[in-house]
Amino acid sequence: MYVPSVDDGLAVKAGCGFGWQIYGKGNLGNPIKINRGVQKINNKNSLYNCWLGLKRIRDEDLRQKYKKYCKNIFYKSNDTIILTAIGELESAINRLFDVEVKTYAEHPGGSYIFVGTLEDALGEGYKINIELEPEGFLIQHLVQTGRNTLLIVGENNNGVLYGVFDFIKSICCGKNMDEIGNVDFPRNQLRLINHWDNINGNIERGYAGQSIFYKDNQVVKDMVRIKDYARLLSSVGINGIVINNVNVHKYETKFITEEYLPDIAILADIFCAYGIKTYLSVNFAAPIEIGKLPTADPLDPQVKKWWSKVTETIYSYIEDFGGFIIKADSEFRPGPFTYGRNHADGANMLAEALKPYGGILIWRCFVYDCMVDWRDRSVDRARAAYDNFKPLDGRFADNVILQVKNGPMDFQIREPVSPLFGAMEKTNLMMEFQITQEYTGQQKHLCYLVPMWKETLDFDTYAKGEGSYVSKVVDGSLFNNKYSGIAGVSNVGDSKCWTGHPLAQANLYGFGRLSWNPEMTSEEIAREWVLLTFGSKGKVMNTIMSMLMDSRDIYENYTSPLGIGWMVNPGHHYGPSVDGYEYSHWGTYHYADFKGIGVDRTVATGTGYTEQYREPVSSMYENIEDCPEELLLFFHHVPYIYRLKSGKTLIQHIYDTHFGGVEQVAQTIERWTDLLGEIPQEIYDLVLSKLEIQLKDAKEWRDVVNTYFYRKTGIKDTHGRKIFE
Amino acid sequence: MYVPSVDDGLAVKAGCGFGWQIYGKGNLGNPIKINRGVQKINNKNSLYNCWLGLKRIRDEDLRQKYKKYCKNIFYKSNDTIILTAIGELESAINRLFDVEVKTYAEHPGGSYIFVGTLEDALGEGYKINIELEPEGFLIQHLVQTGRNTLLIVGENNNGVLYGVFDFIKSICCGKNMDEIGNVDFPRNQLRLINHWDNINGNIERGYAGQSIFYKDNQVVKDMVRIKDYARLLSSVGINGIVINNVNVHKYETKFITEEYLPDIAILADIFCAYGIKTYLSVNFAAPIEIGKLPTADPLDPQVKKWWSKVTETIYSYIEDFGGFIIKADSEFRPGPFTYGRNHADGANMLAEALKPYGGILIWRCFVYDCMVDWRDRSVDRARAAYDNFKPLDGRFADNVILQVKNGPMDFQIREPVSPLFGAMEKTNLMMEFQITQEYTGQQKHLCYLVPMWKETLDFDTYAKGEGSYVSKVVDGSLFNNKYSGIAGVSNVGDSKCWTGHPLAQANLYGFGRLSWNPEMTSEEIAREWVLLTFGSKGKVMNTIMSMLMDSRDIYENYTSPLGIGWMVNPGHHYGPSVDGYEYSHWGTYHYADFKGIGVDRTVATGTGYTEQYREPVSSMYENIEDCPEELLLFFHHVPYIYRLKSGKTLIQHIYDTHFGGVEQVAQTIERWTDLLGEIPQEIYDLVLSKLEIQLKDAKEWRDVVNTYFYRKTGIKDTHGRKIFE
Repeated sequence: MYVPSVDDGLAVKAGCGFGWQIYGKGNLGNPIKINRGVQKINNKNSLYNCWLGLKRIRDEDLRQKYKKYCKNIFYKSNDTIILTAIGELESAINRLFDVEVKTYAEHPGGSYIFVGTLEDALGEGYKINIELEPEGFLIQHLVQTGRNTLLIVGENNNGVLYGVFDFIKSICCGKNMDEIGNVDFPRNQLRLINHWDNINGNIERGYAGQSIFYKDNQVVKDMVRIKDYARLLSSVGINGIVINNVNVHKYETKFITEEYLPDIAILADIFCAYGIKTYLSVNFAAPIEIGKLPTADPLDPQVKKWWSKVTETIYSYIEDFGGFIIKADSEFRPGPFTYGRNHADGANMLAEALKPYGGILIWRCFVYDCMVDWRDRSVDRARAAYDNFKPLDGRFADNVILQVKNGPMDFQIREPVSPLFGAMEKTNLMMEFQITQEYTGQQKHLCYLVPMWKETLDFDTYAKGEGSYVSKVVDGSLFNNKYSGIAGVSNVGDSKCWTGHPLAQANLYGFGRLSWNPEMTSEEIAREWVLLTFGSKGKVMNTIMSMLMDSRDIYENYTSPLGIGWMVNPGHHYGPSVDGYEYSHWGTYHYADFKGIGVDRTVATGTGYTEQYREPVSSMYENIEDCPEELLLFFHHVPYIYRLKSGKTLIQHIYDTHFGGVEQVAQTIERWTDLLGEIPQEIYDLVLSKLEIQLKDAKEWRDVVNTYFYRKTGIKDTHGRKIFE
Repeated sequence: MYVPSVDDGLAVKAGCGFGWQIYGKGNLGNPIKINRGVQKINNKNSLYNCWLGLKRIRDEDLRQKYKKYCKNIFYKSNDTIILTAIGELESAINRLFDVEVKTYAEHPGGSYIFVGTLEDALGEGYKINIELEPEGFLIQHLVQTGRNTLLIVGENNNGVLYGVFDFIKSICCGKNMDEIGNVDFPRNQLRLINHWDNINGNIERGYAGQSIFYKDNQVVKDMVRIKDYARLLSSVGINGIVINNVNVHKYETKFITEEYLPDIAILADIFCAYGIKTYLSVNFAAPIEIGKLPTADPLDPQVKKWWSKVTETIYSYIEDFGGFIIKADSEFRPGPFTYGRNHADGANMLAEALKPYGGILIWRCFVYDCMVDWRDRSVDRARAAYDNFKPLDGRFADNVILQVKNGPMDFQIREPVSPLFGAMEKTNLMMEFQITQEYTGQQKHLCYLVPMWKETLDFDTYAKGEGSYVSKVVDGSLFNNKYSGIAGVSNVGDSKCWTGHPLAQANLYGFGRLSWNPEMTSEEIAREWVLLTFGSKGKVMNTIMSMLMDSRDIYENYTSPLGIGWMVNPGHHYGPSVDGYEYSHWGTYHYADFKGIGVDRTVATGTGYTEQYREPVSSMYENIEDCPEELLLFFHHVPYIYRLKSGKTLIQHIYDTHFGGVEQVAQTIERWTDLLGEIPQEIYDLVLSKLEIQLKDAKEWRDVVNTYFYRKTGIKDTHGRKIFE
């Protein structure tokens, strides 16, 4: 699938703002001529194409059936997003069936595909009997004698685009034309990607190279890759993107000024054409740092005025600007606390500035004391988000959304769900997942994250009785929120395959699909991704599926056990250091001594964190017998000789999982090498090289963790395997 | 003491190379007029002046006696260094006695001070009955009726400068003019300062601000501070300086080219005027990186030719260039190993290029495998320098010097002496001390390092039987070396007091004095420094003396015990992390388990490191009963319940020293606060602020270390003091 890019010479100034229109447009009613020469480049580039590497349909029968429909496209609207959809469809048909498509602005007669919004469709007299949900779409055959006619109708422009992508996906997944037909819609209103990219080209916690947006303190000049990125995101339903790091440094603070806005508007227009709104991370201290005001006090009229003016300027450049995200009073970032104000004061002030334009203000809840005294066991970082925000429930403006990380700590391989999700009945909330693998192998290790996210979304908060799933909090239905949704921290950089590890593409794909529909299973999502990326061959499918589906447990096996987390090298967070964060000021402890390990977070004897959950969850975590064992050490301090339900002691469990995890990685490599010749060599080689790193690292984890506990306890492995002294 | 600087408008192009002459010069025989207006600035600046903040002599009697001599200075030579000496003397006399000095190029008659080389003195007919050692000097009264005449005679120009500084110091130390008189000389030939400064202005392991040489990828323009630094160094006898980091990065690799040499020559000329030769750190891969050669093989004729040409160019800019220092095949730096060559091949090739100009090549022996597998207890980093270099003894050219760190590891608070010092009978060797406090408190903690260096120099290697002290190895006398000496890694940056912590000035002063004469005691050196810096008041002297003299033991008490070292946070090396380097690839382990701690380096059961020493030292370290207890854990793996000579168990010793160390820091603060009003407020405040940081950090060290061992052993403090669980 390919849409000619700006450097094909077809770019036309138009569209959402002042930016780029992505492809040429013919006169209405006449076929549009599109230069397809450049497709060849992408054909060769299997790493780069990700799940959009549409391969020609080889089944002659299938092809003939589709051909009947696909020669003519009929559409009415000239909206940029619709034109994007048409371009995608046309290009896909050409790629898949080698068919020269003709486009029509008037009813072409004969067989055709109609593409348009509900309004367009009704205007043409098509009967649509079902009500489309926001951003939803309908794909439906019109049964007419001698004509093969298909409608792709969207509730709005985005719906049209999603319908087209769904249609393309259905073909690629091998559906027959007769089976084609779908009604779908995104369950979450906001489906956001967060970029932690800095203007100098570095990406905080980025493991796939440098930024695709910035280089050498400027917005990049070559927009092709950014457009291709917009396609990838849109194809899985993303409708918003934050283009700079929540830690807003010196130059990025000025993104909201006319020094940077012309360049940012170009990015915004590219995303806009794919139905994606642009958001900016802002610096709470900006009124001081760039506004020359003496204060950033959110209640100061001058400060309010300053933000209003800033916002006005932004919208003059970017008509459909999404809003701000802000990390305030968190990890040394400035915020309202400086002025004796609270998070609501800070958030509402910014929200007020955005309100006239329909913009939203996203306030991150990753707020905790990061200068903790490790000696004080009563302080518990896990409590922080709830303790900070629960008292403010109901005090946020209606265009404020709180963005809450999935767990109470920080994206560890295993955490309970943040108790905030069941606690904020009167506040818009959204989920923050981390697609970039900061603590989960940094895209050197294979770790398919969808099962973990899925667990979170499926978690029952009991906020309104049984069935009050997190998914219903973040889709806004449980508490009837005005705004809600899911955000994911991007795992993308300028690496050839976008994500460093080719199989980490599955996490980007999966994030989009799960945000679209949290009811999909991890397997369904993985299967789709494998099919679109590697094709339908059984052996390939089975192998990669099993690799993906096992990967999170494997990673957990050889790293930190039973929910305790951390145990990584400080700073970069890669590789094992059991005590790395143990005596630090970050509030990240395991309390391992010669007798036991774990954090007592019970009400009875510990930090009382368990009371932040509603019953029966609270009691489940409180009582060691009921506590899910995979979270045992998160909630309880447990002796090494404690018997798990398996009958094993805790220490033996640690040894077993660490020996076992390494073996599993070795088996993963065996599985992969069995695919030699079955998938593009470039991908095969790159994945293999990553797996070899993973094996080496897994051994290091195994030996460091096992030796650490052996040195501390003197307890030997019951199987007599090698533990270094 | 002040010499007008270049920006007084008195700078004249002249001297050693093409650089700056530091002060104006009148016609011979006529008094020289020197602008003294600028002295006032330095008068106010007690932090900046260090030990050269000459205060006016208030004792009227003393002043009158001196005045007789000091009004007239008679000198013959126009050499830059001599002119520097005259300027220093004149300026000092003016400062100390408020006397207007007149200088004469011909015998002035009446009372005067004659200043000159031995040759000058003999030329004037003065009788010198003793033989002066290289760079030595003589200060002597000429007894003549009715005239007060003093000779300051140097063996060479540097000797003259050192004689002048000694004379000034004697006055400041309160000596009466009648008592003045001295014959002295530096015991070590090379007395070098190594700067780990980078062209971007950062200093590797620098704790006193940014570089005084470089800023924003250029040599600084303002040379005043550099000249003042040269004065400080020269006043304690330093005669060589390496001006860039041994880790030679991209731009610094080009220091040896005409792109940088004009600027570097300016620095070199400033140092030259103070008798200090300039050296450069070079990159072994320079022939490839900047020479466009395909190889850096030291035996390749093209490579040899390239270095020859480079060296020729350097000497065309800097006539008295000292030579190169190089870190090769060490911590990822390139070196001869790449080409299957050894250290001697590499060093000799560079030495050959320098030879025609009298330059020397300093090859660092900090060579070890930094990619060790922590699991393999047979590998011992301590062995590395000896194992690498001992087999090459006798194979180095005569203008090569090996620079060896004092201990076998890396500047820890307590290490044995490197066994290389007794092992290289046919090789020039020099000592490398670290003045910058990388592992000793980073100039936030008070740690007077001279006692530690002194221990090293006083260590008996037994290389030629009893009395074969390290000091005799590095002064070249034991093995009759052509070159030898002592280098120290600078602790200086652009902080107001040069060294971040004002009392860390004592380490810079002490390094110079000890290099000059290793027979001085730590107390003598400290006393001199206090006297020159803070004056002779008893309370001030006693307090600061005790603070300095106790400081190293105090630091050791609250940090890593009994020679085991490390236990610091990786990377920056500040603050405690007991396991920070335990599972790393750096070869830095303590092997603490639930039973004991320490590295078995014996021949009998360990790594065999003890055999690198000669008898009886080898046996002393081999046998746990004879091993000095302060190095117990360096040489032996010892149970926590092992009884030390004190009767305490090892674990109790750890607890006691850590509790005690914190108390000692608290006492240090008490001592210091007793000096309120006794010393300049600015210094008082700054030192107090550092001591408060030290106390906070010492508590952190105490608690982390005690908790670590308590958690590992479950053994309680016998005194029931608070150990956090």
